[in-house]
Amino acid sequence: MGQFWEYFLALLAAYGLLCIVWPPILWDRRSRFFQYIRNEESHMDLKEALDRLDELQRQEYAYDAGLSALYLDGDTVAPRDTAAGRGLAVSVLSGEWHRKFTAPETGELLAFLLGRRDELDPVRRRQVELLKRDYDLDARIPAEEYMEFAQLTSDAGDVWKKAKAAGDFELFRPYLEKIVAFNIKFAGYYDPNKAPYDALLNEFERGTDMAFLDSFFAALRERIVPLIRAIGEKEQPDVSFLHRHYPAERQRKFSDYLMEVMGLDRAHCGIGETEHPFTLSFNKWDARITTHYYEDDLASSMYSVIHEGGHATYDMGVRDEYQFTRLSGGVSMGVHESQSRFYENLIGRSLPFIKAIFPKMAEFFPEQLAGVTPEQFYRAVNKAEPSLIRTEADELTYPLHIMVRYEIEKRLIGGTLEVRDVPAEWNRLYQEYLGVDVPDDAHGCLQDSHWSGGSFGYFPAYALGSAYGAQMLKAMEGDIDVWGPVGRGDLSGVTAWLNEKIHQHGWMMEPADVVKNACGPFDPNVYADYLTEKYSRLYGL
Amino acid sequence: MGQFWEYFLALLAAYGLLCIVWPPILWDRRSRFFQYIRNEESHMDLKEALDRLDELQRQEYAYDAGLSALYLDGDTVAPRDTAAGRGLAVSVLSGEWHRKFTAPETGELLAFLLGRRDELDPVRRRQVELLKRDYDLDARIPAEEYMEFAQLTSDAGDVWKKAKAAGDFELFRPYLEKIVAFNIKFAGYYDPNKAPYDALLNEFERGTDMAFLDSFFAALRERIVPLIRAIGEKEQPDVSFLHRHYPAERQRKFSDYLMEVMGLDRAHCGIGETEHPFTLSFNKWDARITTHYYEDDLASSMYSVIHEGGHATYDMGVRDEYQFTRLSGGVSMGVHESQSRFYENLIGRSLPFIKAIFPKMAEFFPEQLAGVTPEQFYRAVNKAEPSLIRTEADELTYPLHIMVRYEIEKRLIGGTLEVRDVPAEWNRLYQEYLGVDVPDDAHGCLQDSHWSGGSFGYFPAYALGSAYGAQMLKAMEGDIDVWGPVGRGDLSGVTAWLNEKIHQHGWMMEPADVVKNACGPFDPNVYADYLTEKYSRLYGL
Repeated sequence: MGQFWEYFLALLAAYGLLCIVWPPILWDRRSRFFQYIRNEESHMDLKEALDRLDELQRQEYAYDAGLSALYLDGDTVAPRDTAAGRGLAVSVLSGEWHRKFTAPETGELLAFLLGRRDELDPVRRRQVELLKRDYDLDARIPAEEYMEFAQLTSDAGDVWKKAKAAGDFELFRPYLEKIVAFNIKFAGYYDPNKAPYDALLNEFERGTDMAFLDSFFAALRERIVPLIRAIGEKEQPDVSFLHRHYPAERQRKFSDYLMEVMGLDRAHCGIGETEHPFTLSFNKWDARITTHYYEDDLASSMYSVIHEGGHATYDMGVRDEYQFTRLSGGVSMGVHESQSRFYENLIGRSLPFIKAIFPKMAEFFPEQLAGVTPEQFYRAVNKAEPSLIRTEADELTYPLHIMVRYEIEKRLIGGTLEVRDVPAEWNRLYQEYLGVDVPDDAHGCLQDSHWSGGSFGYFPAYALGSAYGAQMLKAMEGDIDVWGPVGRGDLSGVTAWLNEKIHQHGWMMEPADVVKNACGPFDPNVYADYLTEKYSRLYGL
Repeated sequence: MGQFWEYFLALLAAYGLLCIVWPPILWDRRSRFFQYIRNEESHMDLKEALDRLDELQRQEYAYDAGLSALYLDGDTVAPRDTAAGRGLAVSVLSGEWHRKFTAPETGELLAFLLGRRDELDPVRRRQVELLKRDYDLDARIPAEEYMEFAQLTSDAGDVWKKAKAAGDFELFRPYLEKIVAFNIKFAGYYDPNKAPYDALLNEFERGTDMAFLDSFFAALRERIVPLIRAIGEKEQPDVSFLHRHYPAERQRKFSDYLMEVMGLDRAHCGIGETEHPFTLSFNKWDARITTHYYEDDLASSMYSVIHEGGHATYDMGVRDEYQFTRLSGGVSMGVHESQSRFYENLIGRSLPFIKAIFPKMAEFFPEQLAGVTPEQFYRAVNKAEPSLIRTEADELTYPLHIMVRYEIEKRLIGGTLEVRDVPAEWNRLYQEYLGVDVPDDAHGCLQDSHWSGGSFGYFPAYALGSAYGAQMLKAMEGDIDVWGPVGRGDLSGVTAWLNEKIHQHGWMMEPADVVKNACGPFDPNVYADYLTEKYSRLYGL
């Protein structure tokens, strides 16, 4: 017994010595042990973990809202030379959220909840799964790089505006170089097993990659290019009345009317003016769209408002109970674009819709539209002709604009194209695909804001969205009378169908499942068929 | 020796045992010991502590900027029914900053730096002292209360707008009750040794209290009231031309001109439109002012722009190196109001200024001002007559409006007035001080946004600011030729003097020292003298 005590005392003493000389290690082990004990205990407390999940999602919403407000202000009303201070704020706040979200406690919480996934209702389970996906991804991006990128894109947005105004690509080049480098680095964080551009594409539209898009675009080009060539031989409609003088003040009132026709509740949806139109939704009860008025072009802002209104309709249609959680908003860029382009092209550029709104339109612009018929208007806003500016391109040539961007992005991120060669390559591709000469970079590679905002891999979503939309329309026509009500200016049935099939679900389903749920498996031929039929009829082919 | 080892081993063993049974406590003690060691080491690293101080201040700036952007959006362009989601974001973000700032590490950093205060340059020292003051205060406010208050005032702002539009105090009452209760509670956190309202006053203008203000206001009332009575017997100037039709669109252009005259750099200072004009400065390179256009009142927006332009001039004049630190912006509400009211009244309502801008003004409003002379305009915008609305009150009766608010706040916070009795008491005091009947609460106790924003103790700063301003003008006149250049529309000398004496210092000095530095010890008689002289001359007393 004496020996036992001696042995025991010696052990205790040794432990005591270790505690003195090497306290952190022991503490660390011990704390893990105690934490295990605590976890065992907290296993009892699913309720508390779910409360923390709610809190985490409210925090994500709050940081997003603060950043969005800064961004919105910067793009709408902020004075010209204020980007630096805003960039600092954006950088620090982004870094704060990143640090918070990637903290070990977040990982522990999500791991705990995933361990109890069978006890979670489907909504909670989906929230946890999406957040875990984000967590794994974000935890791989160092906070400093995250902040640096936020600051860079904030600055780049300002420089891009100046470069575009001056038509000076060189001004923007160093920023674009850094943004490309960041994207290549981030692609490795997203998925190191994928080619960088595939990893980026997957972030915007889960499930797409270059192989898929190469074949999608090839198939599309094969059917569109001959169509465009055939149209080139036909007589073009008169579009001169679209370019009469349309005072911005009148166009603003016309925008109000268009939003009313779309059923957008103005108590929850605002409209502002920016260089490049966009939609920003804080939550379903607070969406903002923007447009740009050109006094010599009625169609430009008109279709921007309808397009952005489509985005807002989606965001505002997500279920109430998903708000302030990871499930709010639209699920992917492709599905989002399917909605905006649905309203813009499939509805907004249809003859029934134009007939419905034309009388009112003629009240806003009595002199400008004197003697113009709805049919003439319909033909004018569907004039298919290769052109320079994507956002003003017609529905038919639009995908070719996307293909130019896709090719350039693919090669920039793939490392086979230098940023300094972008203007020449851009101009070459516009000549090759669209047969047009680019006069300057403002009308060329500086026309879009996406790259300055840091986005690579977004553009294909526009073409995909159009293809989704054509398929949705076909399914919708099978379910309800689309064109009767639209012909009376009543879009409520269309929106109800889209809400039922798509909007309400938010992030609850994967993008491909949303599309499938609405209109069956993806089939790009439906889109090509739609374009062929519409333009053959328009041009009497 | 054997005994020593036995003794030593037993001690070690006992320590080991303690480590096992009571690890957190020991760890805690030990960690404090190691921390002490580390602190001793980090005493070497002042550089690192200063870097952390910079980071802390940049973080404060970033959270402020995010919250400011949300606030600005909410008050300018946000759709009507979007307050709820914004309130949640504001509440969570405020709570995040509060939690971060009040974390023990902040206290340790500040304590460390204060311990080394003699090694800090004056700028750093002042930053640390101010942050320590904030820290001690904020650490006393529980994060939940802080967030709850942020959410409450965000909601209250929305409700106040509706209540004012409907003239319905009852709608706003429950919010005001909660805001008053919060202020009383916060006053205890600010300084439990002071009467609650004194504690609040001290937050807006360090050094002022009810005793000081009671005597200031009594002295002022003693000299102003007879003056107003004497004016009541005199013939009033014609003001009808101020109320002709002034289209908002023209007034917007006039605002641009006024900002140009004030020397406000539009690349760094924007203007928006809100119910209640205000100034919000993100930093010296990004200030925003707002105004409200009434088409039947030229003077209202005109003097709002000059007033808010004065605030912006102050914020934009603080030294570059103070930006993104605790020293940026104006030092107190009183000093801020001294600047805004300096431009608005002492300059903007002076005859030389009006003569200087009148020709241009007549170009903006040729029909409305046909046949009006600068002298008539001068007399019209200085018409002294008791009225209902503070923001539209003349320079002479203005302090009486403040006194009404001061009395009501004093008694609400002191607990001798119930919120439900505010409208009746407001109306009674307006009758007593100004001799006017309040027709409804929209023109009564619902006219100002301050209470809905959570502020109690702010109003006296307006009167104090006017008094500071009169004294500054006297000092300025001793230093430079004020009225020659102002009479030519050149305000650069005035702004340079104010910048030298006041603006550049930001928070570097205490408010009372700023005033003293600019114009000697505070003397309210200078203000009373100024008013007496100006209005005696205007009304031929």
